[in-house]
Amino acid sequence: MDDGALIEHTTSTELVFDGALLKVRRDQVRLPDATEAIREWIAHPGAVVVIALLDNGHLIFERQFRYPLHQVFIELPAGKIEPNEHPLDTARRELREETGYVARSWRQLGSMHPCIGYSDERIDIFWAQGLSYVGHQRDVGEHLEMLEMSIADALLAVRDGEITDAKTITALMWADKIVVGHWPLPE
Amino acid sequence: MDDGALIEHTTSTELVFDGALLKVRRDQVRLPDATEAIREWIAHPGAVVVIALLDNGHLIFERQFRYPLHQVFIELPAGKIEPNEHPLDTARRELREETGYVARSWRQLGSMHPCIGYSDERIDIFWAQGLSYVGHQRDVGEHLEMLEMSIADALLAVRDGEITDAKTITALMWADKIVVGHWPLPE
Repeated sequence: MDDGALIEHTTSTELVFDGALLKVRRDQVRLPDATEAIREWIAHPGAVVVIALLDNGHLIFERQFRYPLHQVFIELPAGKIEPNEHPLDTARRELREETGYVARSWRQLGSMHPCIGYSDERIDIFWAQGLSYVGHQRDVGEHLEMLEMSIADALLAVRDGEITDAKTITALMWADKIVVGHWPLPE
Repeated sequence: MDDGALIEHTTSTELVFDGALLKVRRDQVRLPDATEAIREWIAHPGAVVVIALLDNGHLIFERQFRYPLHQVFIELPAGKIEPNEHPLDTARRELREETGYVARSWRQLGSMHPCIGYSDERIDIFWAQGLSYVGHQRDVGEHLEMLEMSIADALLAVRDGEITDAKTITALMWADKIVVGHWPLPE
């Protein structure tokens, strides 16, 4: 399809908030009809989420307080990509640090974009199996609890509103399709 | 479960960026171990996403350029909640404005949180059926294309990386589970 009728062109860009966590940019853009508009957006380094399949068929989840919503969330292990880090290394590091597990086999399933309206964040989805527990290395100030759940129970938790984190639900769709054999596990 | 070991308490809050679209807050917090930390986050009014089921069994999708990623995305119809607007009214308004359809029957399926690390955004998921086309009312500067896709084809587009928007994938999980009869359509 010809996307000329949709694409916006940058005419200028400015870092308008340079926080410890958040970098906000404000750009002047030219719309497809040649009018001008302002776009404000978060520049994000990207992240990973890990579907960690235990030998008993359960997945590893975390319970973690998420400050913006003042609420404890059930999530799959995840974390931000460090500068110059390969996403697979981020996935290994986060799984090890947060849950204490290392995995014999890793695959990348796909990627998602959690917040396309105002952030350039991309989250790569990894599959880890052949897990063994070697001890966690949580950062000081990183408070979380681990739990195990079957994919079936996790899906019921989505249905019942107990799992609402979109990156976790998106990764669960991949996990569900793969374990029932509808989608192939990549080589 | 006792969440005292997870919960963070606000000691002060400040609006550090007051943009046209984005409001960024920086809060001082006390962690469960009594140390102090900074949390930066986006204050968001909330949004809706609409699963609009045509009489032919297809869903209505949109192709839209999303500036932060400089990319055209395939998405379900969605939009931000206006001040004092009920989310169902947002859903009706966005479906009408963006796609030109009105629906005879509306249900709320659930909610998701797209960006729990740095935004308080909640997206309510609506189901619309009994659709009739009455003509769109797109805002000036709102450039998008409509397309129809079956749920099966949309799931293949997720598998193949052609749909990566997390709100759309999350809503598709609900649509998939409901049409195959695994999850009930709420009354």
